[in-house]
Amino acid sequence: MDRFTRTHMTSPMYFPGMGTAPFFKVTVFEREGFQGRCLEFTSECCNVHDCGLDNVRSIRVESGAVTHPSDQFTPLSFTHGSSWVGFQHHDFQGQQFILERGEYPNWDAYSGSLSYHNERFMSFRPIYCASHESSRMVIFERENFTGRCTELCDDYPSLQAMGWFRPEVGSMHVQCGAFVCYEYPGYRGQQYIMECERHSGDYQHWRNWGSHCQTPKIQSIRRIRH
Amino acid sequence: MDRFTRTHMTSPMYFPGMGTAPFFKVTVFEREGFQGRCLEFTSECCNVHDCGLDNVRSIRVESGAVTHPSDQFTPLSFTHGSSWVGFQHHDFQGQQFILERGEYPNWDAYSGSLSYHNERFMSFRPIYCASHESSRMVIFERENFTGRCTELCDDYPSLQAMGWFRPEVGSMHVQCGAFVCYEYPGYRGQQYIMECERHSGDYQHWRNWGSHCQTPKIQSIRRIRH
Repeated sequence: MDRFTRTHMTSPMYFPGMGTAPFFKVTVFEREGFQGRCLEFTSECCNVHDCGLDNVRSIRVESGAVTHPSDQFTPLSFTHGSSWVGFQHHDFQGQQFILERGEYPNWDAYSGSLSYHNERFMSFRPIYCASHESSRMVIFERENFTGRCTELCDDYPSLQAMGWFRPEVGSMHVQCGAFVCYEYPGYRGQQYIMECERHSGDYQHWRNWGSHCQTPKIQSIRRIRH
Repeated sequence: MDRFTRTHMTSPMYFPGMGTAPFFKVTVFEREGFQGRCLEFTSECCNVHDCGLDNVRSIRVESGAVTHPSDQFTPLSFTHGSSWVGFQHHDFQGQQFILERGEYPNWDAYSGSLSYHNERFMSFRPIYCASHESSRMVIFERENFTGRCTELCDDYPSLQAMGWFRPEVGSMHVQCGAFVCYEYPGYRGQQYIMECERHSGDYQHWRNWGSHCQTPKIQSIRRIRH
């Protein structure tokens, strides 16, 4: 197994008001089950081809490992797991995959959608989020921030159970932190990463939610943990 | 489109200490996209064949609708969305699917796993859960409630980010409420519904997590909302 370490391109930045500076580390493998050629990254990769990999078929997210030696038990919530987002195409295009600390042995493990199953994973980057307590966004009934709206500051496995009146969202504004929005209830289906650090947190139409987005369907939303 | 209402078999029970009595309603459809023959249920169904359906291919969970008229906006968190669990086989066997209020137009929408894709949905029942605040469970390193352990009383999209030391759990005890455990981080992969009202909340080996369970892999856990 070849092993290379790449700690280049844009470095992770420290964002004021977000507590301790996050530590990012991910290892990507060319074959399923953590086999084949692999590369370690501590910052973004806009095209795995340029790094000598044909594709990525398994992933190990190790962010936060510095404060959590694997041979010692740490009580829950003591560590910070800084998250990544993966993309189907190079240059952060196509289907999005939220990647939190843990092991993803195959495409199945990080995709949430069967309907668009092509097993490509070509670029990825860290996500800068706020603490859980200060994460905040507003969802609107219609595009361009119009119609009925409500503020979200929690995790919502079913927006409708929490009072939202239909299985769609027209537009969104992320005031603080980062969220994952999902097509279906229970955090399933297409994933859309929404960040206050991108587009000024403004997502005024479903076409802005990602190049893979084809409908305004959103039925569950959760915060991304710092 | 034929429409029947079935409100029979075991009635939903009121569990003391769980706040208001939950209201359960689900509509299941024989074809994708809410098409074909459909049936409404307010209590469990142990075999859709016995109700005249070949299979279930789309689902609308409407629990909580009584307190939430669809033509009137209710601020988030005012309504209670009581949840269901669906099963691949009759008599509550096989792959499990957590079903919270919302629309599931196809198998894709309620399954979390591609690796075991057979598109069967043959039985389902309501889940009785505690309030979010009082939900509580303990996870153990090894089977039979041995080894290192920790108490969970929150949602954990990555157990490892929160300090758990490996991508597996040996055994579990649900003290109060109900939880969904997932094979992969970010609430993906196989789903296992764990309830204090079943098996006295004791799940001493991964073989007890469900008839579909084939490994001790668990990387994310969340509470089921009342």
